[in-house]
Amino acid sequence: MSLGSPLTDENNSSAAFYFQGRHHMQTSWNHRYAQRTQRMAGSAIRELLKFTELPDVISFAGGLPAPELFPVAEIASATASVLSRMGSQALQYGATEGYTPLRELLAQQSGAPFVTANILITTGSQQALDLLGKIFINPGDRILVESPTYVGALQAMNAYGAEYVAIPSDDYGMITENLEEALHVGPKLIYVLPNFQNPSGVTLSLERRRQLLDLSRRYGVPIIEDDPYGQLRFEGDPLPSLLSLAAQDYPDDYQGNVIYLSTFSKTLAPGLRVAWVVAPAEVARKLVLAKQGADLHTASLNQILVHEIARTDFLDRHVPLIRQVYRERRDLMVTELAAHLPPGVRWTYPQGGLFLWVTLPEGLDAAATLQAAIAQKVAFVPGAAFFPCGGGANTLRLNFSNANPVQISQGIARLGRVIYEQIDELAHV
Amino acid sequence: MSLGSPLTDENNSSAAFYFQGRHHMQTSWNHRYAQRTQRMAGSAIRELLKFTELPDVISFAGGLPAPELFPVAEIASATASVLSRMGSQALQYGATEGYTPLRELLAQQSGAPFVTANILITTGSQQALDLLGKIFINPGDRILVESPTYVGALQAMNAYGAEYVAIPSDDYGMITENLEEALHVGPKLIYVLPNFQNPSGVTLSLERRRQLLDLSRRYGVPIIEDDPYGQLRFEGDPLPSLLSLAAQDYPDDYQGNVIYLSTFSKTLAPGLRVAWVVAPAEVARKLVLAKQGADLHTASLNQILVHEIARTDFLDRHVPLIRQVYRERRDLMVTELAAHLPPGVRWTYPQGGLFLWVTLPEGLDAAATLQAAIAQKVAFVPGAAFFPCGGGANTLRLNFSNANPVQISQGIARLGRVIYEQIDELAHV
Repeated sequence: MSLGSPLTDENNSSAAFYFQGRHHMQTSWNHRYAQRTQRMAGSAIRELLKFTELPDVISFAGGLPAPELFPVAEIASATASVLSRMGSQALQYGATEGYTPLRELLAQQSGAPFVTANILITTGSQQALDLLGKIFINPGDRILVESPTYVGALQAMNAYGAEYVAIPSDDYGMITENLEEALHVGPKLIYVLPNFQNPSGVTLSLERRRQLLDLSRRYGVPIIEDDPYGQLRFEGDPLPSLLSLAAQDYPDDYQGNVIYLSTFSKTLAPGLRVAWVVAPAEVARKLVLAKQGADLHTASLNQILVHEIARTDFLDRHVPLIRQVYRERRDLMVTELAAHLPPGVRWTYPQGGLFLWVTLPEGLDAAATLQAAIAQKVAFVPGAAFFPCGGGANTLRLNFSNANPVQISQGIARLGRVIYEQIDELAHV
Repeated sequence: MSLGSPLTDENNSSAAFYFQGRHHMQTSWNHRYAQRTQRMAGSAIRELLKFTELPDVISFAGGLPAPELFPVAEIASATASVLSRMGSQALQYGATEGYTPLRELLAQQSGAPFVTANILITTGSQQALDLLGKIFINPGDRILVESPTYVGALQAMNAYGAEYVAIPSDDYGMITENLEEALHVGPKLIYVLPNFQNPSGVTLSLERRRQLLDLSRRYGVPIIEDDPYGQLRFEGDPLPSLLSLAAQDYPDDYQGNVIYLSTFSKTLAPGLRVAWVVAPAEVARKLVLAKQGADLHTASLNQILVHEIARTDFLDRHVPLIRQVYRERRDLMVTELAAHLPPGVRWTYPQGGLFLWVTLPEGLDAAATLQAAIAQKVAFVPGAAFFPCGGGANTLRLNFSNANPVQISQGIARLGRVIYEQIDELAHV
């Protein structure tokens, strides 16, 4: 064994971190981080958005449900019942796959051919994205995404070294006409939010769903279908999920190429962190192995409590209430946008969900608009972060679920003034 | 845009997955997984351990707390109080860092110089291990661990491509005499469980704590101190944590090289999945970025509920009760081992925690012993999985917290018979 000083040891890669004397030692953390951590830098936008927590700022920035609709009494009574009847189980370690009765219920609700082995409970859909990244993505693998797309999915997949192929969207979702060319670069996965997309609010048309599924099969590229908002449709007929279209060809044992994610965050409460994945059984098994290392299992109390509520008809009564309130808020926001925003500004008209998407005239920078908006006590998320391959500087996302009607009217009026000023400034540059 | 068949496109890496006709298309998942997923194979042992869930099997295999000690009434009343007073916050999305009052409380309890910025709440300590792997480990990085060590840490770090340098342990923990040589290979991190280690039950002596810290500083290698059991000491004086030793040199702003993990899983209830990390503020910030992509935040209800209990003196009264029951079970298990196990079998005498460690005579294979034991309705975890660099075939882990006294007496008697038979068989081979 060598007892030489590490400073004189050529083979010791830590030599640069050696300092003489205990009190002067400083661990240089920067040199210790993994390469992937370099992609995790905090953003200037996130810093700006901290101002949205000030009490007099009207924020359309977050993706938060309306807290006044949380069924607090129902959750309190279900929790009390669960703890009194089965407290030991609700407080003990549980299986990584999730609470079996909840998985059974979700399998039933998913329809044929899904069984318990196809269902994994996750700690929010964000964890499902992380686990999918973990089991599928090698550094440099390309993921085909809508542009814009959910920034949290990019964050999850960035950690595994993902690169992106971005397919533009219009009012009917991902433009599938451009898809085949993109598939020729050999993407590893397709990631798509077909219903009331975050951030754009648009919904993938039925024709495009069929095209997307067809192409994904022809090119052998699995689809991750992220569907947190599907149940929050305000009008029009529900469209079949990509999962259900894929499942038609597997009446006995699902072997399709669509992996589906959904959550109780938007229909019950996000603070419980209970979501689920529907996948071919062999993919579900890999996700279970990844989840064992990630958090062992999702909180037992939360899963049993969600099951206690979901097995009754409570959500059948509760979700329509959410739909009604959010529809009113969307209607009001769209009306106020039409009243207060300058000509040349466009926005989407979502048929459900939590968000709409605003496109400012070319040349405007929504990040600068945000800075001005915060001074006027209104906030939103600039769109650029939702474009993994650049672009979208003149776009922004507005959330309409979390603000009340008075805030929506006042906030959009403020936003209108800010954008008028920005356009004015642009004209005088 | 090319419309040619992908089968004729040389550049299309997906060509192998193309099959003619929708109904015959099969997605070949095996070729889709990331390289890291190859290291996630399920184990034969895990399959065997499923038998431990049969009602008449006495299991010393799991790492489960005694559910009869869960403070169900206290948790029920805290939950009811939280939901009635602050239901909207408890059910809403929360900050990734964790619930601020809980972080403040943990900072205070950590003593000087720790402040809220040093504390991150995680979804169990397992998540902390995953996040630390994510921010620190590049594929091929070597992690210095005790041998044996916690298999869940290996699982978390394997996913990031970790390799291991294993330092043998004795009854006083990691043998620090061997440490300096190992540090010459340039490990990225040191991972250690100083108190009542999982799986061995041994505690790192004070002298070795000082040596370990000193060497880690001299070689600039950060330490991850995993301390889930520290509060469950049955006898003897508590030893200072590596964190507290490191903190002495930073009275104002902690810049030490120890990152500390602990949890409410063993003092309150594991099913809540609430744990915490103490780290230099800049490391905590990186962990927050990683956690955003991993699960956004730990369940709000669970954090607020834990705070509601932890801010009172309830745990000061409750934890001594856990200590007393576990001490009685350890005493009984050690007595029964002495009464029933053949000569030549050795075991550790843990001063706390949940586990003790048995070493069978050389030549015995604990995996074969487990197979025979399950037939005799008793189970444990064979030790080999806790050795990342091989070895330990003749070792096994026994949990004494989860079984009641009757089960401990019967189970160890059964185990003794099985091991006698195994030794007999070995003699006749």
